[in-house]
Amino acid sequence: MYIIIIGCGRLGSTLAAELADAGYNVAVIDNDSKKLDALGSGFNGLRVKGIVYDNSALKEANISRATCVVAVTPDDNLNITASLIAKNIFKVRRVIARINDPSKKDVYKVLDIETINPTELISYIIKSKIEGDPK
Amino acid sequence: MYIIIIGCGRLGSTLAAELADAGYNVAVIDNDSKKLDALGSGFNGLRVKGIVYDNSALKEANISRATCVVAVTPDDNLNITASLIAKNIFKVRRVIARINDPSKKDVYKVLDIETINPTELISYIIKSKIEGDPK
Repeated sequence: MYIIIIGCGRLGSTLAAELADAGYNVAVIDNDSKKLDALGSGFNGLRVKGIVYDNSALKEANISRATCVVAVTPDDNLNITASLIAKNIFKVRRVIARINDPSKKDVYKVLDIETINPTELISYIIKSKIEGDPK
Repeated sequence: MYIIIIGCGRLGSTLAAELADAGYNVAVIDNDSKKLDALGSGFNGLRVKGIVYDNSALKEANISRATCVVAVTPDDNLNITASLIAKNIFKVRRVIARINDPSKKDVYKVLDIETINPTELISYIIKSKIEGDPK
């Protein structure tokens, strides 16, 4: 299984390290080489510096071999664009995109892209923690 | 059960709305009145404009009645400070703080404050989704 992570911010880099540690083949694309460097020497995946939805960056990341693409930049529009290209041009089997603005949910639905909304999930988890308390 | 939410950003406002909708008594403190306004007219909780760790803001939010304080600003140091005050000065029974920088985990541990790290949790959730796929 070969996973491409788009965006090497806090979430992307944490996910990249965790997946690589778990034995997955991982590539990470980011425009900022400092962020890629911050993955450290322990990270044995591929690092690609480039515009995350750019064909040349995606090809350098061997997208034709990817079984999964995860778009987790902080920018919803970047994530949508990269996800669409991965899904429709490179026919990647599974594409998961981070969504920050809940109002964009419908866009993803129309495009048939699986999403994960960190804010909603964390809010739900905190609520569940509180609900465990006696009222 | 009375819950004070510290920070009315994306996470704080989502959580405030969700808890209020679930029937909890909720107060939200933020320094930015625009963010408090953005909770909308449907939000029936208390809105307090002020510095989140300031005694007068906390008192205006009726912290002496609070059963739970959740500190979810994007600033770890603000969350630590507010949590400490809630726990040690106002003796709030349960305090939960958002932590963004994992290196701060030890600080919280020493201070005996319950934390939630959104990045680690979301990374774990995405990894679990991927692991459901055939390799």
